Amino acid sequence: MNIDGKLTAQTLRDKLAIEVAEFKSRYKIQPSLTVIIVGDDPASHIYVKNKVKQTQEIGMISNEIKLPIETTENHLLSLLEQLNNDDSVHGILVQLPLPKHIDESAIISAINPDKDVDGFHAMNSGRLFNGEPGALVPCTPQGCVLLAKQHLGKDLSGLHAVVIGRSNIVGKPVAMLLLQENCTVTITHSKTKNLPELCKQADILVAAVGIAKLVKADWVKEGATVIDVGINRITTNEGATKLVGDVDYVEAFEKCGAITPVPGGVGPMTIACLLKNTLAAAKNSLQSR
Amino acid sequence: MNIDGKLTAQTLRDKLAIEVAEFKSRYKIQPSLTVIIVGDDPASHIYVKNKVKQTQEIGMISNEIKLPIETTENHLLSLLEQLNNDDSVHGILVQLPLPKHIDESAIISAINPDKDVDGFHAMNSGRLFNGEPGALVPCTPQGCVLLAKQHLGKDLSGLHAVVIGRSNIVGKPVAMLLLQENCTVTITHSKTKNLPELCKQADILVAAVGIAKLVKADWVKEGATVIDVGINRITTNEGATKLVGDVDYVEAFEKCGAITPVPGGVGPMTIACLLKNTLAAAKNSLQSR
Repeated sequence: MNIDGKLTAQTLRDKLAIEVAEFKSRYKIQPSLTVIIVGDDPASHIYVKNKVKQTQEIGMISNEIKLPIETTENHLLSLLEQLNNDDSVHGILVQLPLPKHIDESAIISAINPDKDVDGFHAMNSGRLFNGEPGALVPCTPQGCVLLAKQHLGKDLSGLHAVVIGRSNIVGKPVAMLLLQENCTVTITHSKTKNLPELCKQADILVAAVGIAKLVKADWVKEGATVIDVGINRITTNEGATKLVGDVDYVEAFEKCGAITPVPGGVGPMTIACLLKNTLAAAKNSLQSR
Repeated sequence: MNIDGKLTAQTLRDKLAIEVAEFKSRYKIQPSLTVIIVGDDPASHIYVKNKVKQTQEIGMISNEIKLPIETTENHLLSLLEQLNNDDSVHGILVQLPLPKHIDESAIISAINPDKDVDGFHAMNSGRLFNGEPGALVPCTPQGCVLLAKQHLGKDLSGLHAVVIGRSNIVGKPVAMLLLQENCTVTITHSKTKNLPELCKQADILVAAVGIAKLVKADWVKEGATVIDVGINRITTNEGATKLVGDVDYVEAFEKCGAITPVPGGVGPMTIACLLKNTLAAAKNSLQSR
């Protein structure tokens, strides 16, 4: 079966909208997200526009700060310091990629970890790693686990999850989340020798490697749950471009128990989980008052 | 074959002694480690005594702060603040376990991450997780990787490592280190369903679960490298007590390519890696001068 990411994301947003209303009524505080975008990359602007729209739709405040491409690293750092110290700002997101003259890791490290709704700060990676409370967890990995549970139910204990890819943004954090769910977890990557064989052991297969249709039907165990994080643009024989995942969806569909489509699978979950993190950051801010 | 942890640790300490001498001669700074021990647990005192001795032997300064069991959490926190701000202190280690009235995680979080030579602070877990420079990595996992390399050579790329156990102190960090070495990594634990089968796939098998002789010969692939982190006290048929690992050494020895003994395997590497971290912390301190 197909796991509908759009529907799952909508359900999550509806749930969050209720929680936001409750939070506002109880604490007289409206959760707020500030998104900073530097330069004029069209894809980034479309993505930020969606974030702003969905943030407002569930009743949170959205602040968008658009900066010219020539913005200096120092300017961005002092802006972040100001936002870090502003109690009315609960979540801060710096849209990536940044222009080349700005050191991304310096910028990420400068965000207050308690407001880092992307979950990329080392403090948040470490809290996730150690299983400490208060971690803001990267959005796409959260979405992957929610989609797996959408099909498998709440208890993933004892299932063997195989993750293809070891990025800081998806592969490694999704592996940690699945470990917390008591899965046995195998992390594979470009140096892995017997990838098809290993994938075939997976009860949950997460593909996050960025290679179009890498995963074939014979890599998939009968009945497995397949979460496809890849978004690859390919040119069809007719010369049109289309988006495909890291999994050959048509082939794998027959074999697996459930699979997320591309587009319409993991993608829609990412912004929904960003909203979830923003509400969590607003809740955490109560403790430091 | 047997992987000799005592010898490997001695070789590492000899190398560190030379590096410490070079560092002192170049920067006129003697690396220093401050160990805090609260209460009078005999095992902890023996362990700290060994740390002090080995620290001094390689030419570093060792400060030992012994506090009574009734020491308050607040007292310990203010002591840590003082040590954090003391430029002559490069490494800080609080010997665990602490008395029950002190919150260990609050204490670990209060250590300056750049002086946290145990590598337990969330910032260090996060730096390790993200592959950021400057991470102080927990000592026992570092020792495991060095022992594996002692047998396998520098390049572990493409080998399949299976880790039994998912603690913050050993299982998870050793998995991250092996991933950085380009191993395919499987993390298993108490909820894992087909543990013997999974272990049998391992080129490198790390057992860090604390169950005496759990791993039997038929769990081990022919020629595998076995790293045994367990230290379990058992009573023999004759009524004597002895230390054994998580692996049935005698059984596994015939099957594997190489194995670390217990005692004399991973154990001696832990303090040697603590000294390595202390020198690294002293080197890092140069950047903040």
